[in-house]
Amino acid sequence: MSAARVKPRNDQANEPSSPVVRFGADKPLLLDAGVTLSPFQVAYQTYGELNAARSNAVLVCHALTGDQHVANANPVTGKPGWWEVLIGPGKIIDTDRFFVICPNVLGSCMGTTGPASTNPATGKAYGLDLPVITVPDMVRAQAMLVDHLGIDQLFCVIGGSLGGMQVLEWASSYSERVFAALPMATGTRHSAQNIAFYEAGRQAVMADPDWRGGRYLDAGVRPEKGLAVARMIAHITYLSESALHRKFGRNLQDRSKLTFSFDADFQVESYLRHQGMTFVDRFDANSYLYLSRAMDYFDMAADHGGVLSDAFKGSKTRFCVVSFTSDWHFPTEESRALVHALNASGASVSFVEIETDKGHDAFLLDEPELFSAVRGFVDSAARARGLHR
Amino acid sequence: MSAARVKPRNDQANEPSSPVVRFGADKPLLLDAGVTLSPFQVAYQTYGELNAARSNAVLVCHALTGDQHVANANPVTGKPGWWEVLIGPGKIIDTDRFFVICPNVLGSCMGTTGPASTNPATGKAYGLDLPVITVPDMVRAQAMLVDHLGIDQLFCVIGGSLGGMQVLEWASSYSERVFAALPMATGTRHSAQNIAFYEAGRQAVMADPDWRGGRYLDAGVRPEKGLAVARMIAHITYLSESALHRKFGRNLQDRSKLTFSFDADFQVESYLRHQGMTFVDRFDANSYLYLSRAMDYFDMAADHGGVLSDAFKGSKTRFCVVSFTSDWHFPTEESRALVHALNASGASVSFVEIETDKGHDAFLLDEPELFSAVRGFVDSAARARGLHR
Repeated sequence: MSAARVKPRNDQANEPSSPVVRFGADKPLLLDAGVTLSPFQVAYQTYGELNAARSNAVLVCHALTGDQHVANANPVTGKPGWWEVLIGPGKIIDTDRFFVICPNVLGSCMGTTGPASTNPATGKAYGLDLPVITVPDMVRAQAMLVDHLGIDQLFCVIGGSLGGMQVLEWASSYSERVFAALPMATGTRHSAQNIAFYEAGRQAVMADPDWRGGRYLDAGVRPEKGLAVARMIAHITYLSESALHRKFGRNLQDRSKLTFSFDADFQVESYLRHQGMTFVDRFDANSYLYLSRAMDYFDMAADHGGVLSDAFKGSKTRFCVVSFTSDWHFPTEESRALVHALNASGASVSFVEIETDKGHDAFLLDEPELFSAVRGFVDSAARARGLHR
Repeated sequence: MSAARVKPRNDQANEPSSPVVRFGADKPLLLDAGVTLSPFQVAYQTYGELNAARSNAVLVCHALTGDQHVANANPVTGKPGWWEVLIGPGKIIDTDRFFVICPNVLGSCMGTTGPASTNPATGKAYGLDLPVITVPDMVRAQAMLVDHLGIDQLFCVIGGSLGGMQVLEWASSYSERVFAALPMATGTRHSAQNIAFYEAGRQAVMADPDWRGGRYLDAGVRPEKGLAVARMIAHITYLSESALHRKFGRNLQDRSKLTFSFDADFQVESYLRHQGMTFVDRFDANSYLYLSRAMDYFDMAADHGGVLSDAFKGSKTRFCVVSFTSDWHFPTEESRALVHALNASGASVSFVEIETDKGHDAFLLDEPELFSAVRGFVDSAARARGLHR
């Protein structure tokens, strides 16, 4: 296990602009696929200071296209960290008070081992030679990072969407290591509709001849068009119909009349094309396949003999489950089913359904009702944990 | 204008397996794009006999991927006509009683002029040299077919989705020629979300290198992968989340365990791939671009100074508007807004909202409540028209 290092931008998959911990042959990771991953590495960011009692750590789990740069400028895009509305000095998750850890997930492309990482056996990028990764695999790797940081119990684990799946997996598999859990805009499994949309996106990537069976990095090309289409499809599911209507409606883009062509006449077209084009600059296409697959495979009830509440049996973790009324990627019913299971398991749980028209992405946005719910839950849990201001 | 002819399968775009009427230089079609299309042709099917009073004609308008083969075996796929559940001898729209006409729409690929048709100016397929087509253009061409058949007033115009848009356009632009109108699962405009999904599909087609800027037919190739992805995206929007859950859930396809790969592990993936693959055998990629664009452009209120009810001012047509509770492609609210506008214009309208979990495609399926609504409306309108059994 080597020391943490910081590297400048470029080959983020191998040399991330963040600390990284390398686990060698003495610390293999057994994957759900039935094979071992070794060596592997986890890139992560931390903010704030671990207190003497090592009791103030907050683990932030990112979503499909997120990364470890939760509260600092992104080294690829230069944009603010993806959750700076919530996390930072004096923010709701106050880095003057908490020690915030955000690891890049296994299978991603920002420094934790993923398909764009160099396979030590070949000296080339893994591509599809990396075994399929699951959410429990991601969480097992994160637990090794938390061990490495010398933390027995996390004060809080928080995240939305795929991040929320990781939160739930943490609370299920490492219940004693999670004092409080804040899963948002998530579910305990991917629905058939979610699998369908992600499958369409994967087919778009794999249909791009520049994908080259997953070996595009060897060839110095990238399946940009296919990945852009996949992003466009997914992005529609992240917004509600009413948000799209409010933001764009049928407004035209920089023109007063229809052009009678296949140009982006409508603002919504222009917006989506932009989303697709900027995404391919910062994300690896194979990582998109792996992380979407991990979401498809996630099914906590199936992992517990078909009884969801068994996933949380005997849990002492305090839960706050957050959903958004207009989220149709992870509808509020999914959260309600989770809350029923948590209640059945005897866990301590509060449920906050936030009224918003912003859709799935609401968990990333400036949403006052969300902030006040998170603040209330975190402050109350901190008091219970003896973390006084 | 030449006589109707029937041709066997193969080049359906130029030599359809159905009657076709050719409009020569004396009958140009002025398009909304501001240019004239001439010559052009309309392929169509008819069933039953026109009565002596020429008062029993029912015009069926097909949806994006439909065709004129509404009640006979499809010449390409060999499958039954796409609306045989509703139309045929002794059926609800009884071809022993009504003279049913179904034209292939302008811009499609089954014999009516579209991008796969030969451009007489070049001897090659139009490709993107065909002007962009609108729903009013489609209806204007259909009106010329109806003239050709010697029919002043249609007893009924019926269709769902893009077909429903045509029904509404008929009732607006040719009110006196439409005794009764039955628009289903449709709206008076495409929503931002619909534009977004179709734009993602168009980008998938255009990202396929075999699309070749629209000139793939000259090169003897087809953008099959891109078109398959477009079909997969659209197909998800045609089904409800609950229908997907009921039909597929998270069931695995021909296997008892996850394979930890990117194969189609889940039934829903296998189903979607099949939908994509079979679609490309029967449909032209450029037609997909044109017809989806026509739907995006459709906006009846915008065409009438922003006042939707003005589209139907003074209409004597009887309307029956049909929507489906689980249709999220054309939500029932769209139909309700249409009904409000029809009421405001003083039109005669009934509204049937059908409770079903089958989603948008319900209008094509065996839906008893739909059948009884159509039967009731058609029988009552027939009596009012003096069409006794």
